Amino acid sequence: MTQPATASTKISTTTPTAAFIGLGAMGTPMAAQLAGQMPTLVWNRTPGKAEAHAAEYGSAASEMEALAQADFIFTCLPTSAEVDIYIDQLLPTLRPGTVWIDCTSGRPAAAREQAARLAAAGVAFLDAPVSGGPAGARAGTLAVMVGGEAATFERALPLLNTFGGTVLLVGPVGSGFAVKAVNNVLMGLHLLSVAEGLASLKKQGVDLAPALTVLNAGSGSSFSSQNKVSQQVFTRQFSPMFKLGLLAKDAGIALENIQEVQASAPLIAATAMLLRAAQATVGSDVDHTEAVKLVELLNGVELN
Amino acid sequence: MTQPATASTKISTTTPTAAFIGLGAMGTPMAAQLAGQMPTLVWNRTPGKAEAHAAEYGSAASEMEALAQADFIFTCLPTSAEVDIYIDQLLPTLRPGTVWIDCTSGRPAAAREQAARLAAAGVAFLDAPVSGGPAGARAGTLAVMVGGEAATFERALPLLNTFGGTVLLVGPVGSGFAVKAVNNVLMGLHLLSVAEGLASLKKQGVDLAPALTVLNAGSGSSFSSQNKVSQQVFTRQFSPMFKLGLLAKDAGIALENIQEVQASAPLIAATAMLLRAAQATVGSDVDHTEAVKLVELLNGVELN
Amino acid sequence: MTQPATASTKISTTTPTAAFIGLGAMGTPMAAQLAGQMPTLVWNRTPGKAEAHAAEYGSAASEMEALAQADFIFTCLPTSAEVDIYIDQLLPTLRPGTVWIDCTSGRPAAAREQAARLAAAGVAFLDAPVSGGPAGARAGTLAVMVGGEAATFERALPLLNTFGGTVLLVGPVGSGFAVKAVNNVLMGLHLLSVAEGLASLKKQGVDLAPALTVLNAGSGSSFSSQNKVSQQVFTRQFSPMFKLGLLAKDAGIALENIQEVQASAPLIAATAMLLRAAQATVGSDVDHTEAVKLVELLNGVELN
Amino acid sequence: MTQPATASTKISTTTPTAAFIGLGAMGTPMAAQLAGQMPTLVWNRTPGKAEAHAAEYGSAASEMEALAQADFIFTCLPTSAEVDIYIDQLLPTLRPGTVWIDCTSGRPAAAREQAARLAAAGVAFLDAPVSGGPAGARAGTLAVMVGGEAATFERALPLLNTFGGTVLLVGPVGSGFAVKAVNNVLMGLHLLSVAEGLASLKKQGVDLAPALTVLNAGSGSSFSSQNKVSQQVFTRQFSPMFKLGLLAKDAGIALENIQEVQASAPLIAATAMLLRAAQATVGSDVDHTEAVKLVELLNGVELN
Repeated sequence: MTQPATASTKISTTTPTAAFIGLGAMGTPMAAQLAGQMPTLVWNRTPGKAEAHAAEYGSAASEMEALAQADFIFTCLPTSAEVDIYIDQLLPTLRPGTVWIDCTSGRPAAAREQAARLAAAGVAFLDAPVSGGPAGARAGTLAVMVGGEAATFERALPLLNTFGGTVLLVGPVGSGFAVKAVNNVLMGLHLLSVAEGLASLKKQGVDLAPALTVLNAGSGSSFSSQNKVSQQVFTRQFSPMFKLGLLAKDAGIALENIQEVQASAPLIAATAMLLRAAQATVGSDVDHTEAVKLVELLNGVELN
Repeated sequence: MTQPATASTKISTTTPTAAFIGLGAMGTPMAAQLAGQMPTLVWNRTPGKAEAHAAEYGSAASEMEALAQADFIFTCLPTSAEVDIYIDQLLPTLRPGTVWIDCTSGRPAAAREQAARLAAAGVAFLDAPVSGGPAGARAGTLAVMVGGEAATFERALPLLNTFGGTVLLVGPVGSGFAVKAVNNVLMGLHLLSVAEGLASLKKQGVDLAPALTVLNAGSGSSFSSQNKVSQQVFTRQFSPMFKLGLLAKDAGIALENIQEVQASAPLIAATAMLLRAAQATVGSDVDHTEAVKLVELLNGVELN
Repeated sequence: MTQPATASTKISTTTPTAAFIGLGAMGTPMAAQLAGQMPTLVWNRTPGKAEAHAAEYGSAASEMEALAQADFIFTCLPTSAEVDIYIDQLLPTLRPGTVWIDCTSGRPAAAREQAARLAAAGVAFLDAPVSGGPAGARAGTLAVMVGGEAATFERALPLLNTFGGTVLLVGPVGSGFAVKAVNNVLMGLHLLSVAEGLASLKKQGVDLAPALTVLNAGSGSSFSSQNKVSQQVFTRQFSPMFKLGLLAKDAGIALENIQEVQASAPLIAATAMLLRAAQATVGSDVDHTEAVKLVELLNGVELN
Repeated sequence: MTQPATASTKISTTTPTAAFIGLGAMGTPMAAQLAGQMPTLVWNRTPGKAEAHAAEYGSAASEMEALAQADFIFTCLPTSAEVDIYIDQLLPTLRPGTVWIDCTSGRPAAAREQAARLAAAGVAFLDAPVSGGPAGARAGTLAVMVGGEAATFERALPLLNTFGGTVLLVGPVGSGFAVKAVNNVLMGLHLLSVAEGLASLKKQGVDLAPALTVLNAGSGSSFSSQNKVSQQVFTRQFSPMFKLGLLAKDAGIALENIQEVQASAPLIAATAMLLRAAQATVGSDVDHTEAVKLVELLNGVELN
């Protein structure tokens, strides 16, 4: 009986192996961090991207089927729908004892279904979305919010720590996605609300540059006001990092979760609606910070 | 050297004198900082408070009338209405060249009227509200947002720097109040919105303590989420520092200003309405962080 | 005349037969109207209710299995989930050519799934929710908003006209539910907003009774302001007709639909959130008009 | 001393005389109704308008100064600011016993000041704004919401009844304006919210014309949905009757009043903000129904 033994070696002290699906803006530096610590197979839909990653970061470009042999399989994709596609493909060959870690900003309901499907094959699941951007991944300081079982979390922690600085188990499967959705909708809310404040101040004749500086030194500051406004809004240099359409999607997930548990969150709901309006008026593929252009449109001013 | 000459020395290099009206939670440490640098007269409506301040910080308790002789007169009061009272009392004896600096979280429209009244007596006016709390005043790190003329601001800057760390001129008279109102409504908005997020997460079965930690390490963080929630909300130790009724008033000022210039700020307007609801259901005299109890009430959960 | 022939007669000119599942506040008078025009089988989960209906209105109490023989099967249930249960039970014995008409305030996504399942058995589906209350059903004046194919709608129209006064096809399957969700969230929005207006007027010292009368004579009037406020709110006689929990559910369906098509509807989203808050603070099983008590709570006044 | 006697005859049974300032869309038919019942002096800022009114309706074009001799002086102007101008002009020559009736959609705070100024001259004041449009004025069916003292109201009632169908005293001075502001913001809210519902339905593939018809037959109907959408929105014939800028102003008055009494009205506040956004994106001088274009813009659809 060699199979059970093989499975049991997965929790042994030998170096685990990782597989990483999705080499986007976030996945690329995250997979690079993993590759710096252990054998790491990488795969991307776009041909050539995995080979380039291997050449630059020492990972190994792999066929889809071979990924199933890794101890830890990471996905980092646009939505939960894409994750389903790869689970479909790999499920027949996944080995018991494997851990699937989804770093997508996904839906808690999808996570619960995915975890159940994988559990039937003896595969554990963690939802482990991240916050902090490519720079945070490169610095190994990402915030990682993890949903799943404590024992699985403990096994995965050394790998998550390669790119994460604050890595915490926040509850059962789906909880990581739930927290990530709240994180992102709050980020969007802070961005829109400081834009509202600045737009009204401009109409009152206030100088925006010093106003923002004192707001950021005061109790009204937020990550959004500190890291986005002077850098992107005032300069009109909206570098496309995280798409507005994806932020609107994340706000939608937060609102979907709120509805599922019959919670009441009027400010978050308003934000979700405004982000859809921003998407309709400004575009889906622009950087999320361009959402402020909705506020500018509604007020007839430009924030600079 | 006759009296008119004395007035002219006010812009000389001799040490200026300060007067401070309003020894509340903020005024007390601010006046203490001034008293450490220059002769400082203090006054408070409550008998004995000025004497105690003098004994502890080296200021000088003064009669109301004598305050008019100071070069710089500070007010730090609950609302612009109280400032009007003291302008009424002192205006007849104020000397030309004096600077009146109002650190109240006041109304821009009131500032413009007050500035005009004082200007008729040759007295300059600055609205210079502060953010950062008593600890910031003691550390000399307050954010001070100043409205007024550049020359007056330059004269007042050394005094403002005794308690301020980020002291900036943000526009003409009233601009300081305008920015302060935005700062405070954003602070309230961030507090209510993180409470909304956490309430919905609790109903989803998420552990709030690690969830807040990762939110604070992520892009959804704000001054409010970092400094208020674990310290006061999770512990249920709502120490009364800044009253909820005053925060609701400040949000109201922000909304009044928004209306005056026909701006559109749906998230700020929603916050102003929710803070009034919090005041009605939780109380006016409690600490402003108790506003989260409205969110708890609307969701049937307690955030801890 | 064998069974297949019987099935073909279903589109003949002989009197069709109806079955009705769900004898609640609405179902009871709707089934009574049908029974006045054609043979009508009735069924309800609660024992004895069907028999009482038969005795009073001339319908026929039936076993669940026998319902499958009717030409038109109506469901009028709390949510789409209950409809699924009865489709599960009857699907094996349903005959091709049957029309299933769901008058529940259901979910469009559920309707599309239900229609597909039934179509596989040759059964057509209409979502046909109603508005107008038990009195409207008794008077035959209900508004009926129908989703489905035009040919099916034409066949069902004579039956729908027994209880409906305005019966219209509004689009493909699911469209009826979509319109009903909008109808109900607007009704809730109008109720909450007139309550907001009246609460603020009371705090301004205005007499509410004449104020409501002129509002209802003016352009600010709505079905809610005309039919609910003086009758129930002012009298504090909140007779339990349509439960607040169900209205909150319907608002949730409207918001779910809005999210699905990435629409932006800030006022509707705010209403959905406020109705959940009303449910949390006032209760689920009270009449929906008690939602005004949330507005009263947030303003510290009673509307009378 | 005949003057006092003259004043006393003003409450006698002789036919009173009226003066009317402001012959706009509403003022024109209202003054015409008065002129049908009693001697009526008319005045308008635009030269020739009063003469035309006199020629068509039997009123008498008058110089400004002569208006002061009327028993009842009506104003029907864009805002309270214009009313102040005419009070300034006429106050020196107004006779005690005169009643000033302001039918403007004004501010309660302005009404209280105006009433106090006039009271010092022995002149009574009523705020008596109207709802129902020019057609309602011509039909004598306007809703008139009156603030002031009961005795003054009784004296004015026969005159108000010439154009009003529902004429009610709703409270002390200012109450009429308070109710009118609520009426108008509700009308705007109903218009925006049915547009939100329809925009989301269109994106769901629903046919809007029958959908609106059933909504109007259902519990989600409102004056706005019944009288504005099929007539103006669906036809894209936005005839300029009541300007969007004035509706936004009225919503602002409602919100100002709400803030003054520290009420919480999130839906009304959201409406005020959206109307300002509509004004910024669509224009001030267009008909108020064009506010739906904001909803169209935010959803990327046209409502027809």
